[in-house]
Amino acid sequence: REDFYPTRLSEPLGVSWLKRHDEVVRGRHVKGPLSEAQLTEFEKNGFLFIPGFLDEAEVEEYRRELDALLARDDYRNRDFTVTEPSSDEIRSLFAVHFLSQKFHKLTEDPKLVDSVRQILGDDVYVHQSRVNYKPGFEGKGFDWHSDFETWHAEDGMPRMGAISASIVLTDNHEFNGPLMLVPGSHQAFVPSLGETPDDNYKSSLKKQEAGVPSKEVLAKLIERNGIQAPKGKAGGLLLFDCNTMHGSNANMSPDPRSNIFFVFNRRDNAMQEPFGAKKQRPDFLAHTPDQRWRDL
Amino acid sequence: REDFYPTRLSEPLGVSWLKRHDEVVRGRHVKGPLSEAQLTEFEKNGFLFIPGFLDEAEVEEYRRELDALLARDDYRNRDFTVTEPSSDEIRSLFAVHFLSQKFHKLTEDPKLVDSVRQILGDDVYVHQSRVNYKPGFEGKGFDWHSDFETWHAEDGMPRMGAISASIVLTDNHEFNGPLMLVPGSHQAFVPSLGETPDDNYKSSLKKQEAGVPSKEVLAKLIERNGIQAPKGKAGGLLLFDCNTMHGSNANMSPDPRSNIFFVFNRRDNAMQEPFGAKKQRPDFLAHTPDQRWRDL
Repeated sequence: REDFYPTRLSEPLGVSWLKRHDEVVRGRHVKGPLSEAQLTEFEKNGFLFIPGFLDEAEVEEYRRELDALLARDDYRNRDFTVTEPSSDEIRSLFAVHFLSQKFHKLTEDPKLVDSVRQILGDDVYVHQSRVNYKPGFEGKGFDWHSDFETWHAEDGMPRMGAISASIVLTDNHEFNGPLMLVPGSHQAFVPSLGETPDDNYKSSLKKQEAGVPSKEVLAKLIERNGIQAPKGKAGGLLLFDCNTMHGSNANMSPDPRSNIFFVFNRRDNAMQEPFGAKKQRPDFLAHTPDQRWRDL
Repeated sequence: REDFYPTRLSEPLGVSWLKRHDEVVRGRHVKGPLSEAQLTEFEKNGFLFIPGFLDEAEVEEYRRELDALLARDDYRNRDFTVTEPSSDEIRSLFAVHFLSQKFHKLTEDPKLVDSVRQILGDDVYVHQSRVNYKPGFEGKGFDWHSDFETWHAEDGMPRMGAISASIVLTDNHEFNGPLMLVPGSHQAFVPSLGETPDDNYKSSLKKQEAGVPSKEVLAKLIERNGIQAPKGKAGGLLLFDCNTMHGSNANMSPDPRSNIFFVFNRRDNAMQEPFGAKKQRPDFLAHTPDQRWRDL
């Protein structure tokens, strides 16, 4: 099996990164809400921020749905549930488009899916979904990483054919830990060193140790194009390529942070055997194209 | 002994904070570089940022001095030295105005001391001094705290009669963990709960556990006036009151961060028995007005 993106290596490759082999924008023929200029911006930067994607009423509606889901006692202690280390408050739910009709519908909203298809091309499915809620002053940061590196190594995503759609349900500002991205970094695949520990996801969802780029390579990437942190009102949509380096800082403000997170993948890019781990991660982290959720 | 600022309490006081009993600006009669408007700003916000306090040549000179000090092998494993947990690189030196003639001179530079005296009044001395160097991507954040709370509880500083002068030797921007402050918070003394552990400073210099405000009180303070993070070129001077709530986030950028940090205190506000700890912290953290440094 050919592997275009070798990673979790036992020895350094001798280069900082490998060239990307996959086109970034593959759906210019698809009709949708994104302009040519927006597609070109996505192609160049590896992300695109669309303020006001949801209006205030929609934001309120999804926020209520999120609250209702996080309050469900029967979701505690489930594998798809992430609770606070210090309490049993639910903070994140995976596979949320299978748990909630409302969020399922949102994954099919033409405004969203057509934008995604303008970037990825026609045939897409939801590879992963998640909602997050963090109260003020909570939420440590997340170190710089490429999602694709993990999805390739641990889930078996063969090529760079996926993008993330993150919708913020709370205002985003300098002090509440907005997502930071490195423009242009999606063009560089940075292999990581070290074998993947068994069941790595159990700790990596909290703090990633395997699969992170070296400081030297990160510095090189950032020195070319800097860092950007899109900010703004609740309801903004951030689309970013699966290989764009991103991270975040801690929330130092009293303002809570919540968001919806969907990963769309091309159907012809469905998961195979993992490229850098002994076994695949559980299905709540990596769905198949025609997956129906197992019984809750 | 009267204690205007009781803290490290065994039970909550039932109020969010206590009123400040000490004037913020007490040196309006002193001649110096600060304008009336700047003094009024300091009085109102509890801090004042002065861009370009050092010129480029001076910044370069102090940066070289800092490098030379941090490179000194004979400073490793000294109590006044803070090294990286994962290596023995020196990252901070305390009592640096006793270690270096150059930094000693800077504490007597009229441009600096006269500014300090315009705020504190005539008679001041250096209560604490420090230099810090952090390479890019290093340096975790520091949670919100008031320095005075610790100096009062653990060093025995009786009243709010001190200010910090922080000179940045590297450019400060949104992504390299600039200092954040809560304007107006210097007017509120927030008592903390819980007894001070023995030798608390050994861990609190890395991550403070005792003496931190509750999230509820912090939220109240921030909701009144927000958060500010002064940024700008190397050479800027930040003066802030001993009781201004401040914190910082991690450095997510490749850019290193270094700064010089002097705390000036009124001579009539010298340390007494600690107000919230069994014994005083070592003298490299809290000098006396006429201290000469012990032999190195």
